[in-house]
This record gives sequence, C-alpha cells and structure tokens, in this order.
Amino acid sequence: MINKQTYVQPSIIEDWVSEIKNGNITLLSKGITLLESKLKQDKEKADQILSYCSPFGSLSSLRISITGAPGVGKSTFIECLGKKWTEEGLKVAVLAIDPSSKNSRGSILGDKTRMENLSKNPLAFIRPSPTGNVLGGVNKHTRETILLCELAGFERIIVETVGVGQSETTVSEMVDFFILLLLPGAGDELQGIKRGIMELADAILITKADGENVKMAKLAKASYANALHLFPPKENEWIPRTEICSSLNNYNMEESWKIADEFFRHNTSNGWIEQNRNNQDIAWMKETLNELILSGFYSQSGFENKYEKIKQAISSQQMSAFEAAEMLYLTFGKNHD
Amino acid sequence: MINKQTYVQPSIIEDWVSEIKNGNITLLSKGITLLESKLKQDKEKADQILSYCSPFGSLSSLRISITGAPGVGKSTFIECLGKKWTEEGLKVAVLAIDPSSKNSRGSILGDKTRMENLSKNPLAFIRPSPTGNVLGGVNKHTRETILLCELAGFERIIVETVGVGQSETTVSEMVDFFILLLLPGAGDELQGIKRGIMELADAILITKADGENVKMAKLAKASYANALHLFPPKENEWIPRTEICSSLNNYNMEESWKIADEFFRHNTSNGWIEQNRNNQDIAWMKETLNELILSGFYSQSGFENKYEKIKQAISSQQMSAFEAAEMLYLTFGKNHD
Repeated sequence: MINKQTYVQPSIIEDWVSEIKNGNITLLSKGITLLESKLKQDKEKADQILSYCSPFGSLSSLRISITGAPGVGKSTFIECLGKKWTEEGLKVAVLAIDPSSKNSRGSILGDKTRMENLSKNPLAFIRPSPTGNVLGGVNKHTRETILLCELAGFERIIVETVGVGQSETTVSEMVDFFILLLLPGAGDELQGIKRGIMELADAILITKADGENVKMAKLAKASYANALHLFPPKENEWIPRTEICSSLNNYNMEESWKIADEFFRHNTSNGWIEQNRNNQDIAWMKETLNELILSGFYSQSGFENKYEKIKQAISSQQMSAFEAAEMLYLTFGKNHD
Repeated sequence: MINKQTYVQPSIIEDWVSEIKNGNITLLSKGITLLESKLKQDKEKADQILSYCSPFGSLSSLRISITGAPGVGKSTFIECLGKKWTEEGLKVAVLAIDPSSKNSRGSILGDKTRMENLSKNPLAFIRPSPTGNVLGGVNKHTRETILLCELAGFERIIVETVGVGQSETTVSEMVDFFILLLLPGAGDELQGIKRGIMELADAILITKADGENVKMAKLAKASYANALHLFPPKENEWIPRTEICSSLNNYNMEESWKIADEFFRHNTSNGWIEQNRNNQDIAWMKETLNELILSGFYSQSGFENKYEKIKQAISSQQMSAFEAAEMLYLTFGKNHD
C-alpha cells in the first residue's frame, strides 16, 4: 500500500487507471473522491478515468445490496460475510450509504471502527458514500464507484443502506442481489422499513437469532416467508428466501451465505444478471440524460432571479402554477425545436 | 340539465365559463374531457377555461382524499359522506382515480352504480379520472379538475384512490385532508397498502365495524393509533386520528365525519390550509416546468431514432450509460447556454 509520503499523482490518466487496475487502493480512493467532487476539473478527470471502465462493469463481480435499520447488525453481518469471502481469496468492497451522514459524521467512522477486522484486511475496501443533496447524487456516485471498484478487481461489491429512505429503490437498480436484514420480534413497520423495500428483497435474514431471540426469530421467519409469497413473482423466477442467523454465535451464517451463492448460480446460468445489468444501464442512461437536461435548463443565467419572482407571483395569487411554469418555459426554453 | 339535443357548444369561452359557474354539469364534464384530451386544440381551449379559475381554487372548498384497498367500502363510505354533506346543502364532487381503469373499465361503471343515490343527487357530481400513461398525467388532470369543480361551486371535493400505487403521494399534494380506510382484522400489508401511505393519513378509519368485526376493529384502531404515534409530528400540528365505523349500520359515521370537521376548523383558523395550498402550487409549478422541459427535449425531431441507436450501443457494450446520455445531450441540447 502506498502511503502519503511516497504518493505521487500520476500526470497521465492511463498511469492512474493502470495503478487502480493493479489494486492501488489509495488511487482508487482518490478516484472516488474525484467522482464525488463538485469541481468541474475533478469531474472531467473522473469521467476520463471512468471511460476506462467496462460499460457493464465486470460480470465476474457480484453486486449486493444489504439493507437494514440501524441496530439490526449490518456491520457485524458484513464483517462476517467479508471474512468468509476474503478467506476464499475474493476481493470485497463495502460502500456504505448513510443518508444521515451529513448530520452524524461520527456514525460512518463508527461503522468503520465496528468493521475493524475487515477494514484491516488487504483484500477488503470500505468506503462511506456521502449522499449530498444533488439531484440523483447518491445514484450517480454510487454507480460509478461500483464501476471503479470493479476496475480495481473487486469481485464482491456490497452496498449498505439503512432502509428508511428512497435510496433503496435506487440502489436496487444498481445491484444484482438485494438482502434485507430484520430484527426478530419487531414488526417491519416498527423498524422503520418501508413496505416497498420488502418487495425488493431477494432474501430476508432475521438477525440476532441467539439466546431467547431464537423462538421469535423463527416466528418472524415464518411470517415474512408468508408475506413474500404475496408479492408478484420476479422476472428471474427467483423465489425470495428467508433465513434466521446470528453473527454473534456464528449460527446459521453458512446457510445465509448459501442463499447468495444459489442466487448467483441460478441467475448467471440463465443469463439474467447480464440482461438485468443491460436494463439497468439503459434506465441509468435515461436518468442521467434527464439530469443533464434539467440542470442545463436551470443553470441558465437569469433563471434563479426570474424563478424567485414567479414564486412570489404565485404566492400573491397573481398567477396560477401552470401559467407560471409556462412562462418560465417560454422564457428560458425558447431554444428548443 | 342540458341534454344532447338542446346542447349548443358556446362559441365564446366566457359563455362556457359562466355556464360552469352557474353549475352547468354537462359543460363542466365537457371541460374536464378537454383537460384530459391529447388534442392540441382541446388543450388550448382547456387552458383558456382554466385561466378563469382562481389560482388558489376556492378557499371555501375542502379537498379530501379517500384512500383504501378494493373491498374496504370506499363507495359506501363516500355515499354516506356525500349524503350528509348534500343534506347540509353543500355541493359534493367525487373524482375517482383508478389506476386499473384501463384494464377494467367496468369497475368505474360499477363504482357509479354503487354510488347510486349520490350520482342521482343534483348537488353531487361523480367523475372517474383515467390515469393514462402520460408523465404526471394523473397529477395534472386531477389537479385541474379540482379547480374546475371549484369554479362550478363545488365545496367538498373528494378524490378517491385505491392506495396501492404512487398516485397517493401525488394526490396528497393536491388535497387538504387525507383519509385512509382500512379493514379490521387484516394487517395493512395484507391490504396492499404501502407503508408511505399511512404516514400521509390525517385520519385512519376502520370500516365494516359491524357484527363480529367490532372487536377486531377496536383492536385494529388501537394498533394503528399506536403506529401513528411513531411518525414525526405534522407541520400543522394535527395529530392523526383513528376511528371505527360501519356504513352498513350507520355506526359511528357521525364520529368519523367530526374528525374532518375538526381538521378543517383547526387548520383554517391557523392559516395552514391557505399556506399549504400555496406550497402545493409552487411544487406543482416546479413539476409542470420539469415536464415541459423534458417533453420539449424528447419531442425534438430525430430524437427517437437516435435514442434507439444509442440503446443498441449500450446493449452491445460499445458505450457506457453515461457516455450515451452525454452524447444525446450534446446532440439535442446544444441550444442551451
């Protein structure tokens, strides 16, 4: 690993890319920082690096989303999973998306500390992902970070989210496999898990199934297994699975991981993962194009000023919402057609 | 009421508007049909009519959303509510949004038949609203239909949705008061009600609380009342209420309606309804502007053709999603800045 003293910024992007390909974690990190930067020159550099990534990323990588409310034991679970995979010689990247990170920067540090063993493992890479407020910010950065990690040879990409916001749907559109972690004994509503998230799950794991919790965990398993049957069948014909486990006792962890293995065997052989990534790419292209169009429109000079005036006109009932929108469009969109 | 034989299309929009203001239901219906039309000339006419609506609609009207899964008893409930309000001399409009209406046109007719008494009531107006597939279509038409109904002097506007889709969030952004109807004895998940919808509710009413259901309804009431306490407090400081009722026995219906009355007393006196409608208008302006910008971009000549080619390039891995979006933007968005 290159430390700060010996680090020299490569003047040529190719050098940088080849360093990342060789597994230079420092330059990978720096590349991700460029992706997340708001500076134009950084973004240009990031785009150049990205152009070396395979459009499809790597099909030998598996992209997994792990979602669960705070306290469900995500870090411990990921640490166990990371340990298993690195022991098999696989390189594991963990991207943690924390919508609260702006307010509680400590929590990310906390996560890193909790994943202490994994963060010291030379085959692992842990990176918190600030969500920011940019339109689609989470989406773009996380997606591109996955591609960069795959360029660096990572074969298991874990995207960690807390399951309370909109980000899970977005994340589900960039991973292959979606795991939902739930606590035993508390309804999903009490855990703040939004209903839509359960529909996304390919596997629901009831964590902390140890000691007196085991009985409750088994009940929860049965109840979620029933609930999952109510959802329409998935396109890839995968039937979502439910399991109980305990990272503390290492109880049933092997069983839980087997679900992931089975999922990938099933969906690689039938070509679904490749097809799904292709669909994800087209959806992602549309979204990126919409962002470019809207941000191009809104960044025109004079727009902000006019926009504030129009809002005033609406508030003082001089203008309807529709008239206001049409006036803004006619003023600033006249170059179309 | 004007029938087809005697109906003459007013050549001047002012005449039309004044007929609508006088409560001419046929012309109101025809105005709504114009709003929903995809023909340019119809839309222009509709926009002209709309320009006569107060931007804020009528502050003497109350806009209520009533959401519940099929079978929960929405029609019967609305019929009871409509009966009460029309008996007080209030004009009641019911706009039914049925996302499945394209496939099961019968259901709307069915609704109309079930609301038999209300549909015959001269003070009531029942109108199904096709959702269509247009970007934001539900939103725009329903919102404008509310304004037209208010122009026609309707004082209680009920928007009915089935609670399973995205439309509820959209609808919540155009009403003052949001009622969720739930069955006793089945969890909200089994009723297909999305989690987010419960957060929107100002009142949850457990329907069909008759006979053997009463006990279950009381349990459900307690459980939902608890769940509601977990949500963050609302801006208007209204604490969402829970009640059980039965349209069949007319049991507790009075109590249920009182919640609506209290809500309006509370939120009219503190100015929240007016402020909220203003905020809704600004949000609506933004959304309309985004639609105008995007549809202007996508309707450029040659776009569709290029877009299909670009999708092919993504599928054959010749181009990344980001490169593809950028190329489309550079080709068709060059007029910006």
